[in-house]
Amino acid sequence: MGVSRREATCQQAVARGVVTRAQTDFSILAAVDIVFVCTPLAAILPTVEQLTANLPSDAIITDVGSVKSAIVASASPLWPHFIGGHPMAGNEQQGIAAGQRGLFIGAPYVLTPTATTLPRVLQTVSGLARSLGSQVITCSPEAHDRAVAWVSHLPVMVSASLIAACLAEPDRPLAQRLASSGFRDTSRVGGGNPELGVMMARYNRSHLRRSLLEYRRRLDEIIDYIEQEDWQSLEALLQVVHQTRTPFL
Amino acid sequence: MGVSRREATCQQAVARGVVTRAQTDFSILAAVDIVFVCTPLAAILPTVEQLTANLPSDAIITDVGSVKSAIVASASPLWPHFIGGHPMAGNEQQGIAAGQRGLFIGAPYVLTPTATTLPRVLQTVSGLARSLGSQVITCSPEAHDRAVAWVSHLPVMVSASLIAACLAEPDRPLAQRLASSGFRDTSRVGGGNPELGVMMARYNRSHLRRSLLEYRRRLDEIIDYIEQEDWQSLEALLQVVHQTRTPFL
Repeated sequence: MGVSRREATCQQAVARGVVTRAQTDFSILAAVDIVFVCTPLAAILPTVEQLTANLPSDAIITDVGSVKSAIVASASPLWPHFIGGHPMAGNEQQGIAAGQRGLFIGAPYVLTPTATTLPRVLQTVSGLARSLGSQVITCSPEAHDRAVAWVSHLPVMVSASLIAACLAEPDRPLAQRLASSGFRDTSRVGGGNPELGVMMARYNRSHLRRSLLEYRRRLDEIIDYIEQEDWQSLEALLQVVHQTRTPFL
Repeated sequence: MGVSRREATCQQAVARGVVTRAQTDFSILAAVDIVFVCTPLAAILPTVEQLTANLPSDAIITDVGSVKSAIVASASPLWPHFIGGHPMAGNEQQGIAAGQRGLFIGAPYVLTPTATTLPRVLQTVSGLARSLGSQVITCSPEAHDRAVAWVSHLPVMVSASLIAACLAEPDRPLAQRLASSGFRDTSRVGGGNPELGVMMARYNRSHLRRSLLEYRRRLDEIIDYIEQEDWQSLEALLQVVHQTRTPFL
């Protein structure tokens, strides 16, 4: 069963075989066991509020938002069977047409139960995530937000700054022609959905800010080595970085 | 004909069918028409110097170094038929085993002729580059170095700083498990060959320094928006970035 704001999306979802039935209001969900809220971050809480009037009392609600503390703290009191989720797969595209079969295979799927989460709720959502081929990871909403600030939200700002910096090149056509796989990969997440970038920053502001300040400290270190022509220290840093990356892959 | 410092590499090159014959000294090149110098940046000039005693006087020498001004300025006086080159394809691996059939297809191949370059020299190297499927781009050594500072060397430092920053996370195992395609892509070039990173910085220091300072200015702008909670300005910047990226791809 699918619910979307726009009728056209409902029709596309049925046509693509993504759902059996779809409509623009919540009445279609009167008998469901579990709801995945897949809206932008700012719409998750209003959606959970609306859902509470339309679901069986033992139904589970989960979300796929990329920030968890703020969502879980506010949604849990609204619905006792709410559990925060974050499937970490996707690309820079958006909308139903960007859907891909097998997108979740091998990808981390984070679930953030709290002290009040019933075991049944965690088990049901974990089972569904594993059935998609995801690797389920369980942690606190707070630990999730601190980790994704480094590996997901910081890369967006780092990458966006790279594209922004290149605007200063007077001969941009030549730079564009010479941009190759290195530029394409490093700029990918920064060139993604601007609204999503803002939402990450709003909802995970304190962790992201801390990551950004540490990032700037390391960047300044590199700039300093280059200004001082301290090639030995630059190579030592790049060696550490070279060895550090592998465990993240 | 191939020349390598190490006998093992010569044998591998013959075994892989990359060359017809290979050996560790330059005498094998006594009758060649053109030489591609594919050493690290610091070894290009010493190699050209050695070559001058071993080549027919009308042979062409070109290189594949990722910086051009310093190389071209020093190599041209040593050999009148020298032309600087930079095929912009590759990945974070190195050595003969990392070679890939078709790597050059569709990739930019920059040639940097000067006022003294004979038309025959440019035509011969262009023709060979096109026969590999590359797109030949001709510009001055200076214009090349300024452009690659933005799209090639700056991304390495930006990406390396990202990996270095993540070392500050106390729960690194969780961050590593949550690192997904966004982190993988943004960190790729920063985790590459440390020596190459240092050589880029040494040989293209002034352009890279300027790019880094402009990058830090844009990064500070983003940090400032996040500290001030100025979401409108952050979204406006991410919108510009979103629209700017496409022409680079």
